[in-house]
Order: sequence, then structure tokens, then C-alpha cells
Amino acid sequence: MKHRVVVVGAGFAGLQAVKDLKGANCQITLIDQRNHHLFQPLLYQVATTLLATSEIAWPIRRVLRNRSDVTTLLATVSGVDVALREVVIDDDRRIPFDTLIVASGARHAYFGNDRWEIDAPGLKTLEDATTIRRRLLLAFERAELTEDEAEREAQLTFAVIGAGPTGVELVGIIAELAQRVLPDEFRRIDTRKARIMLIEAGPRILPAFPEKLSTYAAATLATRGVDVRTGLPVTSVSAKGITLGEQPIAARTVIWAAGVQASPAARWLGAPADRAGRVLAGPQLTVPGDDAIFVLGDTAHVESKGAPVPGIAPAAKQQGKHAARVIRARLAGRAEPPPFRYSHMGNLATIGRNAAVIDFNGFTLKGRLAWWIWGIAHIYFLIGTRSRLAVALSWLWSFVSGHNSARLITQKETLRKLD
Amino acid sequence: MKHRVVVVGAGFAGLQAVKDLKGANCQITLIDQRNHHLFQPLLYQVATTLLATSEIAWPIRRVLRNRSDVTTLLATVSGVDVALREVVIDDDRRIPFDTLIVASGARHAYFGNDRWEIDAPGLKTLEDATTIRRRLLLAFERAELTEDEAEREAQLTFAVIGAGPTGVELVGIIAELAQRVLPDEFRRIDTRKARIMLIEAGPRILPAFPEKLSTYAAATLATRGVDVRTGLPVTSVSAKGITLGEQPIAARTVIWAAGVQASPAARWLGAPADRAGRVLAGPQLTVPGDDAIFVLGDTAHVESKGAPVPGIAPAAKQQGKHAARVIRARLAGRAEPPPFRYSHMGNLATIGRNAAVIDFNGFTLKGRLAWWIWGIAHIYFLIGTRSRLAVALSWLWSFVSGHNSARLITQKETLRKLD
Repeated sequence: MKHRVVVVGAGFAGLQAVKDLKGANCQITLIDQRNHHLFQPLLYQVATTLLATSEIAWPIRRVLRNRSDVTTLLATVSGVDVALREVVIDDDRRIPFDTLIVASGARHAYFGNDRWEIDAPGLKTLEDATTIRRRLLLAFERAELTEDEAEREAQLTFAVIGAGPTGVELVGIIAELAQRVLPDEFRRIDTRKARIMLIEAGPRILPAFPEKLSTYAAATLATRGVDVRTGLPVTSVSAKGITLGEQPIAARTVIWAAGVQASPAARWLGAPADRAGRVLAGPQLTVPGDDAIFVLGDTAHVESKGAPVPGIAPAAKQQGKHAARVIRARLAGRAEPPPFRYSHMGNLATIGRNAAVIDFNGFTLKGRLAWWIWGIAHIYFLIGTRSRLAVALSWLWSFVSGHNSARLITQKETLRKLD
Repeated sequence: MKHRVVVVGAGFAGLQAVKDLKGANCQITLIDQRNHHLFQPLLYQVATTLLATSEIAWPIRRVLRNRSDVTTLLATVSGVDVALREVVIDDDRRIPFDTLIVASGARHAYFGNDRWEIDAPGLKTLEDATTIRRRLLLAFERAELTEDEAEREAQLTFAVIGAGPTGVELVGIIAELAQRVLPDEFRRIDTRKARIMLIEAGPRILPAFPEKLSTYAAATLATRGVDVRTGLPVTSVSAKGITLGEQPIAARTVIWAAGVQASPAARWLGAPADRAGRVLAGPQLTVPGDDAIFVLGDTAHVESKGAPVPGIAPAAKQQGKHAARVIRARLAGRAEPPPFRYSHMGNLATIGRNAAVIDFNGFTLKGRLAWWIWGIAHIYFLIGTRSRLAVALSWLWSFVSGHNSARLITQKETLRKLD
């Protein structure tokens, strides 16, 4: 019987591992609770009406249609029976494995305030993105509809909590929506008066970037009408708004971009984890004491050259590659490759039209050129010609016409009542 | 003060009326419960993974951004106060009018079996389309996952009830999905064995077309693996399947394309209606006894040359045009135009790749040429260059590559429990 590899999660890490196991003569089962692989680095553009959902997500089985060695299952993992070497999915069905790769990702972390999630959704899935898009657009609609001045102001106040790349990118596009895309479509409100807040508890935005790029980003956002607030934590979130330190701010749209929490992989595996719930991975990315179980990507705490590896797509892909290399070596009876070493390519973030920051290991770039490089790099990393064409068309259209093409409000707002 | 026109519904009829009132020196309020105008003739392609939602829907306020005389409100109409000349929206707010146009469309009709809707959704809104798409794709996923042979067969049985153009177009693409798009992506099931049923209680499919086109369509569908059943009504629908006459058929995916029911406009207006709930419109498309209230499109029963006008997009547009013409004549103090006359351009329906039927008032066409004409006509009627490019790209891609680009399963299945 062929060696059975079960991969949980078809994100960047899991999908890369599956790809790199091509021809390794094993029987692979890939399990994900979604039917699509998602290009998360552009998810914020779906949330902010620039891209459509179908442009950054691909059916997993379509990506792997030529891989007869891979069976894809749409199922939710409820646990792992480490002793019996089985993954447990819906209805207590069991999928046996010889080697297991757990790359099940992360969700937002609310640092003990999980009830904030309803009013301050994070951005990890397509549903998250359409929820945020719906709230953004509904806020403008409700502002247009209301006769109450205070309510109008609250509807036109948008608060993004957390100023890493995602937070910065979100406010950048929201500002463009309010300043450039929407003004001539409303009759009773001036969308340019919308208040867009970027809130960071730490001392500066984009903390992972060199300080001069943080300063540039903050200044650029300020000239585009974003109210950047650093140094004060959000102390409460409700349907009405937030409290910043001691100050209550009425904001009907709040987005959470502040932290992530790993999937329950540590619990499934009974393995030690760090504070964010990430399983502590060994030098070959396996669980300590169990060489046949790999943990990759956002669900793993991986160290390289003495520092933790960041939770970004290139790092996840490198880990997927490494796991596949280790498995192939073992199956071929060769010596295992040397321990995983993370190669950092750099940090990128857009700030809005014609503005981005790039830090390539100390070589920094900002402004228009950085923005174009950012765009070309992201087009390149998309899967398939169809998506590249579609995203390029959407971006070009938005750039030339000043209109965003994905501005539908769909699904009802069922989670919360606003007033 | 300017003449106040309130338009309820931004479908084909309402939007056309607003467009044709350009420069008429009135103050227009357009109310819709959605933020988008929807190109319903292609909605079935969203339901069947060929097109993305954003390709056939446009934000209403974007379409009307240059019309400073139009205020668009995203709101739900709860009634009309005919005596006070006010439309009542959410929260009992009132929008006064001098002239009212009600073009609020229709929903599916289940002929007294409203509880069937949960298990046999119809196709009127984008949410309907994504619900049907989710169920279609989940059925294949569940068939791949299950170990139970009977369950697998039920998951791979798809029943479309009603064989007008929508029903025929739906089964045409579902058959293509099963036969051409999906087979190489599944490992445990053969999607080509899926059973796709088109069910019509009447004696033939496409009853509005000449009989020879019905015969051609039925024969074409049969060669593509569709099980066409005419002459027997569906007598029950549940989560498990349907009963056709006396025969129970296990089918986990059931789609309703059998009938429509007008919006509650007749109740709002206290006006007489036909059996489908459509307000009986007079020769100028106004409510009998109230010249200032127009009823248009699917929400109206309009007669022309002694026959009822069909519920299709060109008819709705012509009615919108006529209403605007009457209003302009009145405002200018001119004589009103002659009563509304419907000009029938023809009936079109696709049956799948390279096959369509067209009936231009007796001149009929079928097959490949009809299919191309159908496609070009629909591209032409889309709004805006962006949509035309996007839809053309999606169609071209699907035609050339054999893959459909909108195959995401999003949102949870919350309405019903399957087992």
C-alpha cells in the first residue's frame, strides 16, 4: 500500500506541500472546510470593493485536477487520533494517515474579548470580506437615509483597529472610496466628510517596517484624510462604536485587524503551543516527539535563525516546500534535508493609489514605484491566467475610471442589530 | 416646488422610467431594497458557476451618478398611503410623491405550497443564485465524501421544476458542469453519472415557443444527458427529494423555476389584481381610478392588443419608457401619448454550449448560430463597458478552457438541515 499523507488545510502551506509531493508515490488526502484556496494577501481588496470574490479564490479541486494521487475532501476536522493515526472529520468519520500535515491556519484573536467579534469582524475568509464590504457600503446608505445628524456622523465613522499591513491597506482604500469613488453618487451626504480612523495601541503604524517607512505611511494616510491614532488601546467595542483609552467614539463600522489566534491544532495534537495557540514546531517542522506529524503556517510557531518566522504567505509556502522535501527524503530512504531556514524576501504594504512601502531586507522603497512593484508582484503570485487577467482588468478599470467594480451588498445583516 | 416622482424598484421597468425622465425637470426618488440593479436574464449563469455576481449587477447609485435630479434610497417599502400621497418605508418614514411608479417585481410562486421554498429555492435575486450555486456544488462534494451508495445517488440527482427558459437554461449548464467541467476533479465519484431532471407539468418544455423548437430543445437536452419529464406535476417537495405524480425521487438539490408571484403592490395600493397578484394596469399603465400611480413590469398585469404582456425584460423596459413619456407629456401640458402597445421582439433561450432557440415573431432559429446571436445580444444589453468585458472574458474563458470561473461555495447552509 502506498504511503498515506493527509494534509489538513489548503492554504499557502498545505497547498504548497501537496504540490511539491507530486510524483512522490504517495496517496494524498487534502481536507479543507472550504472548497477554495484563498489568496489572502488581497482579501482586503474584496472587503473594500476593489475585487470580486471569485478573482482571488480558486476551487481546490480545480487547482489539483491533474493530480490523480490527490483526493480532496470538503470537510471539517474535529480532531486527530494520534495513537490510532487517524484524522477525525464530520460525523466522526476517520481518515487514516502515515504522515500528517496540519496547516489549518488562524482566526482573529480578540485578546479575551471574543464578544467584540460581532461588532468588529476580522478579515480571514471570503465571508469575512463580504461582511465587511456589506457594512462599509450599508453605512453610507444609512447615512444617506437618516434624518438624524448624530446618527449620520456615526454611520460615517469607520474605525480600523490594528495598524499592520492589513489595517493600513484597509484604511487606504476606504479613504479612496469616500474621497474619490462615492462623492458624486450621494445627494444628501458628502462622503468626503467620512471619518476614517486607523487605531494602533503601539507607538507607530506598520511596526514590522523600518521607522522611516512607518512615518511615510502615516503622513501619506493623513494627507488622504485618515485619522491615525497611535499609543492608545481600544478598551471596548459595541454596536454603537468603540472606546479609545477613555474616549468613546461613535462608529457604526469597526474592523478588527489586530491579532490572530491559531486553529485548535495544538488541542487536536496534544502538543505544546505558544501564547497565540501555535504549535511549537521542531527544526524539521514536526511536532516534538512525533516525526510523522508536521505543523505549518499560521498554526505553527516556527523559529529560524533564532527568531520566530512571520505569519505571511511566502513563509507558509517555504514551510510547505520544506515539509514535502523531508517526506520525499524519508520515502526515498535518503538523509533528511538540513533544518528549515526561513528566507525573508521582504515586507510590502500599499497605502492607497500610487503609494506603497517595501522593505527588502533593509533596502527600502516607497511611493509610486513601490506601488507598481507591489501590484505586479501580486498579479504574478495569483494562480492561473484567468485570475491574473481578471484582477489586472479590475485594477486597471479602477485606476482609469475611478470606479470600483465589486460594490454589491449581498446577504442580510443577521448577526447584530444596530440600534 | 418641482414635481416629485417616486419610483419603487430599480429593475428594468423602474430604471428605464428614471432614465427617460432625464431633463423632465422633476425631483425623483428611487427606492429599492437592494443596492444594485440586476440583469436577471443571466442570473441562471451565476447560479451555475459561469458568471460571478459582480458581473451582472451594478450599484444603482453608480448607474445614476450623473443624475443630480435623482436621489437613490436603499430602503424597504412597507406600504403606500394613497390618500396622503406618501410611500411608507422602514421605520414608518414617509416619502411624499406627486406621481408614483411602482415597479417592485415578483417573487416565486409555489401555488399554495410556500413551505417548498426552503428545499426548492427559486431564482430572482443574487442571494437566490448563490444559494443554488452552493447547493449544486455541495451536492458533488457530499457525494464525493459519503460512503453510502443511496446517499451518493441522491446527492447526484438534480431536479429543476418548470421548463420555461430559466428551467431549460439551468439544466443545460448543470449538465455541462457534470459532463465536461467537473469529471477530472473528483476521485471517488463519476460526475457524468449525475442525474439531471427537467420537470414540466405541461405537455412540452418551452411552452411559449413554437412546438418545433420545443422538440429540438428536448432532443438536444436528452443527448446531453438531461432526463426531461413532461406531463406530470410535482406533488411534494422536501429536503429528501420530490414526488413526481406518485413516484418519489430522492434528489438533494431541487430548483424551482415554475412560477412567479407579484410583489405586494396590489395590497399597498388597494388595487384590483389578477390571480398572480399583479395589479391590473389601465391603457396608460396607471392604476384604474388614479392617473398619478403607475404600475409596471412583473408587478403589473398589462394588456396589449388584447393579450397579456409577458414578464420579460424588454416588456418591462418598454413599460418604463411609456410611463416616462406619459409623465413628460403631462408636465409639459401636451396631449398624452396613445395607450401602451407592446412590441414583441422575440423569445430566446439557450440550451447549453452551441445550442439555443430563437423565435422572432415566427422566424425561428436554432443551434449554433442561435447560440452566438443569443450571446452577442446579451453582451449588448449589459450595462457598461466593464461588465461587457468581464462577461465576455468569462464566457470566452469557459468556452476555450472548459472551466467555469465562479465556483466558490460561500456562506453556510443555514436554512435547512439535510438529514
